[in-house]
Amino acid sequence: MSVTQLRQRSLLGLKELDKEEMLSILDRAAYWENQPEKVQAVIPGQFVANMFFENSTRTRFSFEVAEKRLGAEVLNFTAAASSVEKGESIYDTVRTLESMGIDAGVIRLKPIGVLAELAERIRVPLINAGDGNNEHPTQALLDLYTMRKQFGSLEGLTVSIIGDILHSRVARSNLWALRTLGARVMFCAPQGMQATELDAPYVTMDEALRADVVMMLRVQLERHEGGLIRSAEDYRSHYGLTVERALKIAPHAIIMHPAPVNRNVEIDDELVEHPQSRIFTQMSHGVPVRMAVIERALS
Amino acid sequence: MSVTQLRQRSLLGLKELDKEEMLSILDRAAYWENQPEKVQAVIPGQFVANMFFENSTRTRFSFEVAEKRLGAEVLNFTAAASSVEKGESIYDTVRTLESMGIDAGVIRLKPIGVLAELAERIRVPLINAGDGNNEHPTQALLDLYTMRKQFGSLEGLTVSIIGDILHSRVARSNLWALRTLGARVMFCAPQGMQATELDAPYVTMDEALRADVVMMLRVQLERHEGGLIRSAEDYRSHYGLTVERALKIAPHAIIMHPAPVNRNVEIDDELVEHPQSRIFTQMSHGVPVRMAVIERALS
Amino acid sequence: MSVTQLRQRSLLGLKELDKEEMLSILDRAAYWENQPEKVQAVIPGQFVANMFFENSTRTRFSFEVAEKRLGAEVLNFTAAASSVEKGESIYDTVRTLESMGIDAGVIRLKPIGVLAELAERIRVPLINAGDGNNEHPTQALLDLYTMRKQFGSLEGLTVSIIGDILHSRVARSNLWALRTLGARVMFCAPQGMQATELDAPYVTMDEALRADVVMMLRVQLERHEGGLIRSAEDYRSHYGLTVERALKIAPHAIIMHPAPVNRNVEIDDELVEHPQSRIFTQMSHGVPVRMAVIERALS
Repeated sequence: MSVTQLRQRSLLGLKELDKEEMLSILDRAAYWENQPEKVQAVIPGQFVANMFFENSTRTRFSFEVAEKRLGAEVLNFTAAASSVEKGESIYDTVRTLESMGIDAGVIRLKPIGVLAELAERIRVPLINAGDGNNEHPTQALLDLYTMRKQFGSLEGLTVSIIGDILHSRVARSNLWALRTLGARVMFCAPQGMQATELDAPYVTMDEALRADVVMMLRVQLERHEGGLIRSAEDYRSHYGLTVERALKIAPHAIIMHPAPVNRNVEIDDELVEHPQSRIFTQMSHGVPVRMAVIERALS
Repeated sequence: MSVTQLRQRSLLGLKELDKEEMLSILDRAAYWENQPEKVQAVIPGQFVANMFFENSTRTRFSFEVAEKRLGAEVLNFTAAASSVEKGESIYDTVRTLESMGIDAGVIRLKPIGVLAELAERIRVPLINAGDGNNEHPTQALLDLYTMRKQFGSLEGLTVSIIGDILHSRVARSNLWALRTLGARVMFCAPQGMQATELDAPYVTMDEALRADVVMMLRVQLERHEGGLIRSAEDYRSHYGLTVERALKIAPHAIIMHPAPVNRNVEIDDELVEHPQSRIFTQMSHGVPVRMAVIERALS
Repeated sequence: MSVTQLRQRSLLGLKELDKEEMLSILDRAAYWENQPEKVQAVIPGQFVANMFFENSTRTRFSFEVAEKRLGAEVLNFTAAASSVEKGESIYDTVRTLESMGIDAGVIRLKPIGVLAELAERIRVPLINAGDGNNEHPTQALLDLYTMRKQFGSLEGLTVSIIGDILHSRVARSNLWALRTLGARVMFCAPQGMQATELDAPYVTMDEALRADVVMMLRVQLERHEGGLIRSAEDYRSHYGLTVERALKIAPHAIIMHPAPVNRNVEIDDELVEHPQSRIFTQMSHGVPVRMAVIERALS
């Protein structure tokens, strides 16, 4: 495979992806969502390795279901707790699986910049399943898919993303993709959780709740010890989507969250399966979206 | 699927199951045990998730073999050591897998009452692979299967269950099922291991050894620190099936154990593969019994 | 299956295997390496259990790919970190999987002598994927395959194996197999890492580097605390394949390593993918070699 083909089949991020390409993935996902038979062996005998150097039950299962629905052979690699972290070890593991003949790799890792390096050195298509705080393209694609299904188009939509923007690859991938597709993104975050290098306005909670899409992020308070936010209750009272605050959301608007949810921290328990929430719907869209992404990598 | 259908396809326990239903599962298991081809894709393209919130190599593999022999696609979820334990987290994980499109879930968990709650909220059939100290229906079904195969019928059979009744879901599922099928159950246990709410007589070891089926339970001494039983040797000398005690078992009777066995604690090493032992036979029956249970859930 | 058949289908080690048998496995591996279709269901519906009582990502994946390419159903058992270690527990686990109907078992374990015992008691073919410091036959077979592919024949070849011979099953399997196939083996190791019971000459690094094949072993310094080698740097300076030392290797010779590599300890970073290195090539040969071994076990 040529380097150009490899680049076209890999999915490292949405920042560089053009509108046409994104919409073509979403269209193909819609095709897969509407297929009555669950398994269609479109890539039989092809091996896909899920290489998770950072743990994630949900994302891994979503990919696994997608791969199996396409008839692929699946290999699951999960790094033991405190094991491989350094770039060179990750490279050796990926290169090993490549040597064994895998046809594509789905990869999640923590260290920043390692994925881009891998993409230069590995000769099979790679799909980013979350890299550091950089990108999480398939999550953003399933978010886009959910919004488009709800509103028909992303053009002119307002989307507010609330929470730990600084550490969020979901926020970054969504920001870049939503821009490309003509939506308007606002961020809302306490000071220590803002990413000033990203070009989107920060608004108050009240303004954020007026958007068409209110997307809450998972907060990991252990990352912010000693900061302004001192407890889960403190976070909830300032930035959580409480039942009270949810009353301010427009009737046509939807609530989103990439999951897993910290119930009663960034979102109140009662809202997780609220009629305006699309949280579990997002998860169900993950499968057809990832089928489209894997199919693109392999066929 | 209607709520009634869902209930009929799920297998949460044997307490409520009637005789006809149990025998129909055992008959179907016999069918599967006698099939010459190992894999028959009767449920192709259907996804079964094994969700083990409590670890169990044996039970999980037994289900996995059963599922693969039926041609199902298998997803294995195992909760990391000290992770998810609370009901709400378990619900979120199961609901996530449901959103991804699984067709049935096999579930093992520790907290009491959570499975019943899940069954109210999840819309795919659930199969109980062990919940707290409540029920372990597929284990009891494979025990019943083993007894029926040995004695032709369960009607009038005497079965003694020896060990930690208090914490045993195997004892409970067997008690309820054996009753329904016309067998007589006796318990034998030291004081701190008795479950007084269960309606079965406690007998001495000598009486217990006179039964048609002598079923030993796995003892977990760490649960009883500070109790009357002070050591493995102490337990063995009072409640273990020693070589000496085994001489009192009738020639037509069989020895059973749900495994894994603590050799030389509840049962002597030499007896594990004794001609009257059915311990590994039980395990081999687990596969066709679980095939019958999964097929019932999915077809 | 008769005991003789079982022995002929199992692969416990290379010490007892004759030349004809080894070459027939290598020939069959060559057949598999050259097949254009990745998956050919030659053993459909057969269950192979990978039972790893000692962790190894690489070897396990290599077997898994091989099994899936042959169309087998795969079960992966990995013992939790500090769990089962004793022979009896290993036996119970293997016997359990046998009871569930597996057709062959791939097994890796630490305790010495347990594999031979298992082979006496288990009635399905077993394939040794590494036992203690005794043998690792499939690794040696893929090494032989790589050498034969490079040099056409093993007859008269000189092979030096450098590193911790004492604890190396790779060294032992290679020594015995290379002898049988007519190659000449030399060892090079610091004093505490020599295995005096093995019948091969110890040479200096300078002599070792003159061989046709320079095989480096993974060093685990934690096994040698308090010995003559005090640090990774110390090891590297005396026994590592440094860029400087690599200049002494003949242009026709090749560098091998069973992986995973400790970069800049036993081998310098720059040499891992050097044109004369066959490290990742070895890994890619692992798959067809293991296909040949599993096919031999099952058909």
